[in-house]
Amino acid sequence: MSKTRVLTGITTTGTPHLGNYVGAIKPAIAASQDPNVQSFYFLADLHSLIKCQDPRRVQESRLEIAATWLALGLDTDNAIFYRQSDIPEIPELTWLLSCVCAKGLMNRAHAYKAAVAENEAAGNLDPDKGITMGLFGYPVLMAADILMFNAHKVPVGRDQIQHIEMARDMAGRFNHLYKGQYFTLPEAVVDEKVEVLGGLDGRKMSKSYNNTIPLFASEKKLLKLVRKIKTNSLEPGEPKDPDTCTLFQIYSAFATVEETEFMRQQYRDGIGWGEAKNQVFEYLNEHLREPRERYQALMEDPGHIEDVLQKGAERARAEAAPLMDSLRQAVGLGRFH
Amino acid sequence: MSKTRVLTGITTTGTPHLGNYVGAIKPAIAASQDPNVQSFYFLADLHSLIKCQDPRRVQESRLEIAATWLALGLDTDNAIFYRQSDIPEIPELTWLLSCVCAKGLMNRAHAYKAAVAENEAAGNLDPDKGITMGLFGYPVLMAADILMFNAHKVPVGRDQIQHIEMARDMAGRFNHLYKGQYFTLPEAVVDEKVEVLGGLDGRKMSKSYNNTIPLFASEKKLLKLVRKIKTNSLEPGEPKDPDTCTLFQIYSAFATVEETEFMRQQYRDGIGWGEAKNQVFEYLNEHLREPRERYQALMEDPGHIEDVLQKGAERARAEAAPLMDSLRQAVGLGRFH
Repeated sequence: MSKTRVLTGITTTGTPHLGNYVGAIKPAIAASQDPNVQSFYFLADLHSLIKCQDPRRVQESRLEIAATWLALGLDTDNAIFYRQSDIPEIPELTWLLSCVCAKGLMNRAHAYKAAVAENEAAGNLDPDKGITMGLFGYPVLMAADILMFNAHKVPVGRDQIQHIEMARDMAGRFNHLYKGQYFTLPEAVVDEKVEVLGGLDGRKMSKSYNNTIPLFASEKKLLKLVRKIKTNSLEPGEPKDPDTCTLFQIYSAFATVEETEFMRQQYRDGIGWGEAKNQVFEYLNEHLREPRERYQALMEDPGHIEDVLQKGAERARAEAAPLMDSLRQAVGLGRFH
Repeated sequence: MSKTRVLTGITTTGTPHLGNYVGAIKPAIAASQDPNVQSFYFLADLHSLIKCQDPRRVQESRLEIAATWLALGLDTDNAIFYRQSDIPEIPELTWLLSCVCAKGLMNRAHAYKAAVAENEAAGNLDPDKGITMGLFGYPVLMAADILMFNAHKVPVGRDQIQHIEMARDMAGRFNHLYKGQYFTLPEAVVDEKVEVLGGLDGRKMSKSYNNTIPLFASEKKLLKLVRKIKTNSLEPGEPKDPDTCTLFQIYSAFATVEETEFMRQQYRDGIGWGEAKNQVFEYLNEHLREPRERYQALMEDPGHIEDVLQKGAERARAEAAPLMDSLRQAVGLGRFH
C-alpha cells in the first residue's frame, strides 16, 4: 500500500505572522514528520495573482514564505515542497477539468457569491463588477492542484470545504466520462481546534486588519510590537483576567503547559502590563531567535531557496508528468504512433 | 523589421470536407507561401475537448486534419505548424490572462449567450444548464493562443471577430497593469468573399448537417456522394440554371474560369444530371488523386506526422518559452536569484 497523501497549499500574498505560525505552519510542519504520510506543500503563487497585481509584493511574499517554512524545519527530503508555478502540468490539467466542470458549480462558489453580494450591497448595476475570470474560476485551478497529485487528504478551514467538494465533483465527472479511475477523490480534513491568535488590536491576527506581528520581525521590531498589544487599564497589583487577554493568548500559544500556568498565576497576582509584555517579548524572542537567524540567512541566499524549490518541482513533476500523459491519452490528445 | 505574423487555428473535431477545403484550407495554404509573412497554424485540440468527449474521435480528427494539411502541401519549413496541446505555455498564459479578464466580458460572448438562449427557449430553469467552464471561458484560451505568439493578424469569420476583440482587451489590460508592451494587439482579418460550399442537400456543407463530402473520400465513395448531390427533376435536353445548382457550385470551386464557362454552356444546352455528375466526379477525382494518395500514405505513417508536429512544437516553443519567462517575471513569478 502506498502512503496517504496529504496536500497543503500556502497562499503567497503576505508576510508570515505569529497567527499563521500558530494556526497553520506549526501544525503542518509537525504533520509532515509523520513517516506514514507523503506530504505535498506548495506555494500557491498562481492563485496569488487573483488578489495581488503588485509583482514586487508577489515575488517578496513567495521568497519570505519559502524561507519561513525552511527556517522552521520543514523536512524537504520527506515532504515534497514546490512552487505551483513550476509545474506546467497544473494549468494544463486546469483546462481539462474546465471541460468537465459545470459553470453552475462555479456560480455557487462562496468567494464568487460574496463578491457578487458586495457589488449588490454597493448598488452596482453589474453584479460581476470587478470580478475576474481568475476569481470566478479558481476552484478549477484548486481542483487541479489537488487532483494532479492524487491527494487523499487536504487539511482545510471550514470555508474551504466547498472547494474540496468541487474537486471531488470534477474528479468523479472526469472518471465517469472517460471511463477510468484517473483521479482519487480527495477528502477535506477540517481541524476543529485550529488556534486563532489575536492581533495587536485584539481582533483575529490578520493581514487584512493590519494588526499582525511578523513571525521573523527583528528583535527591536518584535519588542515594539509586543508593547503595542492592546491591554486594559488595570494598574500593577490589580488581579487581571488571562482568558480575555490577547497578550496571554499569544504567550500560551508558544509556552508549555507549566509555563502557561505560571503566567496565569502572575496575572492573578496582579503583574503589571509592562512587566508582562517584557516577559512575553523575552520568551518569544528566545524561541524565535534560532529560526529567525536561519530565516535571515536564507533570505540572503535566494539562490539556495531556488535550488530547494527546483528539487521539489522535479519530485512533483515526476508525479505530475506521467499522470498528465495518461490524461492526455484518456481525452484523445495522445501522441500519434 | 520582423515579418507580419498571421495565426490560424484549426478545430479538430471533424473530418475535412470539400467545404473546409474551399472555404479555409486552400486559401490558408496559399497565404502561407507569402515570403513576407510568418504563418502559425495550429491544431486547436484543447478547444476540441469543449465539444467532443469521445477520445477516439478527437484523436482521429487530429490525425486526419494534420495529414490533410500536409498532403495539400503546407510548407512546414516556412509556416510553423503545431498542436496546441504540445505547447504547455498556452494553458499557463491562459491562467495569467484569466486574472486580468473581466468575467463580464465572458458573459457577453456569443457562444455562451447562444447556449443560454437555447436553455431559455427549452424552458430550462437553469440558464447555465449543460454549460461547462470550458465553453464559458474558451475565449481566454483563444486569447492565449493568439497572444502567445504576438500574432499581428488573425484571419477569422465574422462570428469570430468578437474573440479577437476580447484578446485585444486582455492584452491591453495586461500591458497596462504590468506596465510594459508584453503583447501585440492582434487584428482580425475578415475575408468577406469566403466561399461557402453547398452540401449534398443544398444547405451549407457542414458536419452538423451531415451533408458533407469528405475531401479525401475514396474514389468509390466520392462517386457515390457526388451522385447523391440534390438536383432538380429536369430531364436531359432541358436547359438548367447553373447559378442555383449545388453541383455546379462545387465544380466551379475547383475548375478554372474557362472550364467553369464551358460547364455553364453545357447547363444551358441541357446536359443530363447523370452526365453532369459524371463529369464533376471525374474532375474532382482527377484533381484530388495526388493529394489523396499523399494523404493515405501519411495516414499510414502517423509516426512521421508526429515528427513533423514535434518539430513544429519545438519552433513554436522557441517563441513561447522566452515570452512566458518574461511574463512570469512581469507578474512576480520569476525565479529567485
